[in-house]
Amino acid sequence: MYTPSTKETAILLIHCPDQKGILAAVTQFLNENKGNIIYLDQNVDRAESIFFMRVEWELDLFAIPKEKIAEYFETLFAKKFNLQFTLHFSNERPRMALFVSKMSHCMFDILARYMAAEWVVDIPVIVSNHNDLKPIAERFGIEFYCFPKNGANKEEQEIKEITLLKEKKIDLIVLGRYMQVLSDKFVSNFPNQIINIHHSFLPAFAGAKPYHAAHERGVKIIGATSHYVTADLDAGPIIAQDVVRISHVDSIESLVRKGRDLEKIVLSEAVYKHLQRKILVFNNRTIIFN
Amino acid sequence: MYTPSTKETAILLIHCPDQKGILAAVTQFLNENKGNIIYLDQNVDRAESIFFMRVEWELDLFAIPKEKIAEYFETLFAKKFNLQFTLHFSNERPRMALFVSKMSHCMFDILARYMAAEWVVDIPVIVSNHNDLKPIAERFGIEFYCFPKNGANKEEQEIKEITLLKEKKIDLIVLGRYMQVLSDKFVSNFPNQIINIHHSFLPAFAGAKPYHAAHERGVKIIGATSHYVTADLDAGPIIAQDVVRISHVDSIESLVRKGRDLEKIVLSEAVYKHLQRKILVFNNRTIIFN
Amino acid sequence: MYTPSTKETAILLIHCPDQKGILAAVTQFLNENKGNIIYLDQNVDRAESIFFMRVEWELDLFAIPKEKIAEYFETLFAKKFNLQFTLHFSNERPRMALFVSKMSHCMFDILARYMAAEWVVDIPVIVSNHNDLKPIAERFGIEFYCFPKNGANKEEQEIKEITLLKEKKIDLIVLGRYMQVLSDKFVSNFPNQIINIHHSFLPAFAGAKPYHAAHERGVKIIGATSHYVTADLDAGPIIAQDVVRISHVDSIESLVRKGRDLEKIVLSEAVYKHLQRKILVFNNRTIIFN
Amino acid sequence: MYTPSTKETAILLIHCPDQKGILAAVTQFLNENKGNIIYLDQNVDRAESIFFMRVEWELDLFAIPKEKIAEYFETLFAKKFNLQFTLHFSNERPRMALFVSKMSHCMFDILARYMAAEWVVDIPVIVSNHNDLKPIAERFGIEFYCFPKNGANKEEQEIKEITLLKEKKIDLIVLGRYMQVLSDKFVSNFPNQIINIHHSFLPAFAGAKPYHAAHERGVKIIGATSHYVTADLDAGPIIAQDVVRISHVDSIESLVRKGRDLEKIVLSEAVYKHLQRKILVFNNRTIIFN
Repeated sequence: MYTPSTKETAILLIHCPDQKGILAAVTQFLNENKGNIIYLDQNVDRAESIFFMRVEWELDLFAIPKEKIAEYFETLFAKKFNLQFTLHFSNERPRMALFVSKMSHCMFDILARYMAAEWVVDIPVIVSNHNDLKPIAERFGIEFYCFPKNGANKEEQEIKEITLLKEKKIDLIVLGRYMQVLSDKFVSNFPNQIINIHHSFLPAFAGAKPYHAAHERGVKIIGATSHYVTADLDAGPIIAQDVVRISHVDSIESLVRKGRDLEKIVLSEAVYKHLQRKILVFNNRTIIFN
Repeated sequence: MYTPSTKETAILLIHCPDQKGILAAVTQFLNENKGNIIYLDQNVDRAESIFFMRVEWELDLFAIPKEKIAEYFETLFAKKFNLQFTLHFSNERPRMALFVSKMSHCMFDILARYMAAEWVVDIPVIVSNHNDLKPIAERFGIEFYCFPKNGANKEEQEIKEITLLKEKKIDLIVLGRYMQVLSDKFVSNFPNQIINIHHSFLPAFAGAKPYHAAHERGVKIIGATSHYVTADLDAGPIIAQDVVRISHVDSIESLVRKGRDLEKIVLSEAVYKHLQRKILVFNNRTIIFN
Repeated sequence: MYTPSTKETAILLIHCPDQKGILAAVTQFLNENKGNIIYLDQNVDRAESIFFMRVEWELDLFAIPKEKIAEYFETLFAKKFNLQFTLHFSNERPRMALFVSKMSHCMFDILARYMAAEWVVDIPVIVSNHNDLKPIAERFGIEFYCFPKNGANKEEQEIKEITLLKEKKIDLIVLGRYMQVLSDKFVSNFPNQIINIHHSFLPAFAGAKPYHAAHERGVKIIGATSHYVTADLDAGPIIAQDVVRISHVDSIESLVRKGRDLEKIVLSEAVYKHLQRKILVFNNRTIIFN
Repeated sequence: MYTPSTKETAILLIHCPDQKGILAAVTQFLNENKGNIIYLDQNVDRAESIFFMRVEWELDLFAIPKEKIAEYFETLFAKKFNLQFTLHFSNERPRMALFVSKMSHCMFDILARYMAAEWVVDIPVIVSNHNDLKPIAERFGIEFYCFPKNGANKEEQEIKEITLLKEKKIDLIVLGRYMQVLSDKFVSNFPNQIINIHHSFLPAFAGAKPYHAAHERGVKIIGATSHYVTADLDAGPIIAQDVVRISHVDSIESLVRKGRDLEKIVLSEAVYKHLQRKILVFNNRTIIFN
């Protein structure tokens, strides 16, 4: 159970080979240095013998200066436990770019949460391959860039996109039904920093037109899947999935309609977990902390 | 399976005591008069022996003039079968008023669908008891009226609201987390025309602070319920419900966060069904056609 | 809403190209001949323009003798409407053979329903490729036949099985986690009469070891699928599916445990629908009537 | 992620006021004494500032003799941390009594798991107020006792039941649709040792005939709830809940049929969690460890 602290906190995500004493060592270290732990979730993958942990503590009384924490962890734990960690601070606001095409439902869902300050994030820029949703971006006062793509110009357009994203210091890209496949080169610039929503229950119906395929196959349940984008299409680490029952009375249009609600909720859930630093990626799978 | 016609259609919702021949009589009547049926769903409540039907047909070749259809049904079927019906036409656009307080999630969800033309509806006015969401209404170019309420002025404010709603020819009121109880008098002006979202799985946790009550009781699933508003608080005909699993790790804040997604989706689903003329109310229960 | 009649009923499943008058014609025919309709469900696939219907009526006052009904439908409707139908009578008890291997959960679930007379069915025989579950069959007083299979003897064992099934007048075969693929020849003897449970959310993870594959892929939801068996492995018409949420804390053993509950419920649901004559197969998909 | 150890283990369930160092202290103590931890799950209720933990470790190399462990925890931790704990050992087989009336679905589901050795439990006795299910108990070779109850003899029959249960050393009573309310006196003999299944989504429709009430209210989802029995009817700590969608086409009979599947699965899930020592009761709520 978790209540955000009003104080600045540090968040540590750890994984290492499972071994005696790792949990005691880390918690004792934080306690001894007056770091008030406000969140701790850990578990062990017994099959592969890997220890995973997320711990968050308040910095106001913490004996070690914020900028030295990573160094201390490196020295004290990383080598000893063969441990890998990432460190975040609660006052860092992630900077998100939202990529869209012509459908607005994911865009509206994300912007609604943004406007309501549900999320700790900045969204300085919306990118699209079409101009259709530009008026909505303007309505929300967010810069909108259009990079139309065709077979010939994809590489040069992606270079412009990457330039823009770097310039805007973007560290999270959310594809809200962006109907273009990103190149490996693009993806490699943002490892575990691009979240996509696929409109099927992956790995079923990967690729194009999943609702048509679902209708053709006669499934009784459809789904949506949010995942980190990797070089393999629709094969990156899954973050969240949800499903809805359908029946023979549902036409393809009806699947599309029902699917929209799944898509936007599942995508936003994944973004929320990412922004909360609750996701750890390991072996193309995700550990989603509570 | 249903694909909207591009032609104007008539929609008939019927209920009557179950009896031989009613289904054949109605479908034969439509066929003989060249009404091309594009939707038919019917069922019988065997326990109470009531027949329910929704039928929709194209008007372009229909032999009976649009303005005479009700009269024909009255004459041919209403008395003979002791049948009650409502008749709608697809080119009537319902006019919705959206009532909100301070929370924006239902409002955004509805306006997003409105902007994307997912729904056949006009939303000429948003009403609130606070001014907090006025900027969002303005962003979407919709008139916003604020009628602040306290113990003393409720009756006079409701009179102003009713006047406004009548003036705007409103025939559907959607309460998107509007945190005021409407008086019986107000409700009686709009029978089966007010849709509310209650943030619990009714009849559990009716009334105030359902998430607090759910947490206190230690339930493992929370829900949301959309229903028509009647004089009995939270006791009107239920239109749609959905649930999400929770656990002991969820704080009240976490229930509120998870509940928001349920609330907006369940409310919008109910509004959609209403706009589609897919709901028939009988004995404080709803028949929701496919 | 459906309450079984205490009288003998006829059940008719129909599909034909959609056309005016078919619904009126059939219901009028039943009414005129004093067939009291106790169930009627119909729908139209608008995309493919196919009409589907299930109608059930009481025979006690029906003017047409039971053994002549099929002939009348053939004459009156089949040619005129290019209609295909199957006709069942409520006093026919289907005869089921249950195929199992070593896991008992589906077997117990089916036998429990059988013992409690939840289903209208006879189960004269249980078939297996192992003897492990023989004691349970004996406990329930059901004949148990073991046909062990290996690479070499499959064909001859299947011939023995078919002989037994024909001798026992079996018209429904239920594979309750039977871990053998049936040959095309076997399957062709029982078209739409063999129901299998696959332990995944098809079409995801078809084939062997779906829980291992689901764990490897890192999905957040697992499922089970019941379907009619066709010559294509795991590709027959889907009858029912259900899912359950999992997380990174679930080991493969845990998926297997959670999956067992899905498997037995989904399989039994499919068998129930089949026994109720509520399933119509068309184009490798199922229409499941209410 | 949890794989049962082949070695004997100790299982400790702890709760205490949240405080620095408790997690480190316990894990360090186990590590120092060579207790190989194979499971650890903990969380803090931030609102009430309570720390909860379940830890399990192998005993083969553990320095402290099995029979001394409780004493050590009492001395080292209980006073210091104001901590309450329960201690279990994996080689203790709980002894369950199953109470039933006339419906067999929960009974079959439990006995099927028992026969398949899914659970670590002994079920030496089945108790009922009717003789209807006696033949099934005999089929499974389990002693069956019938204590018929009426308004007059309830107290004396309960005394006989308690005597039997004490004699059989029963430490878990499972009410598998046992249609009698147990007296406070009976319940007080088995605190947090009686698991009931209620056939509604509690707190909705507590008391008698919940399916009738659900149908009358017109809900769109029904549920089942397993809980520990306390003196307040249907108000004990909830262990597990599940739901299924229904619609206006479902009759009461249909709700009963769909509900049966929920009831048996939800009850068995609760029993499984209890047998795994994964449940901690606090303030009339349950913490269900992973």
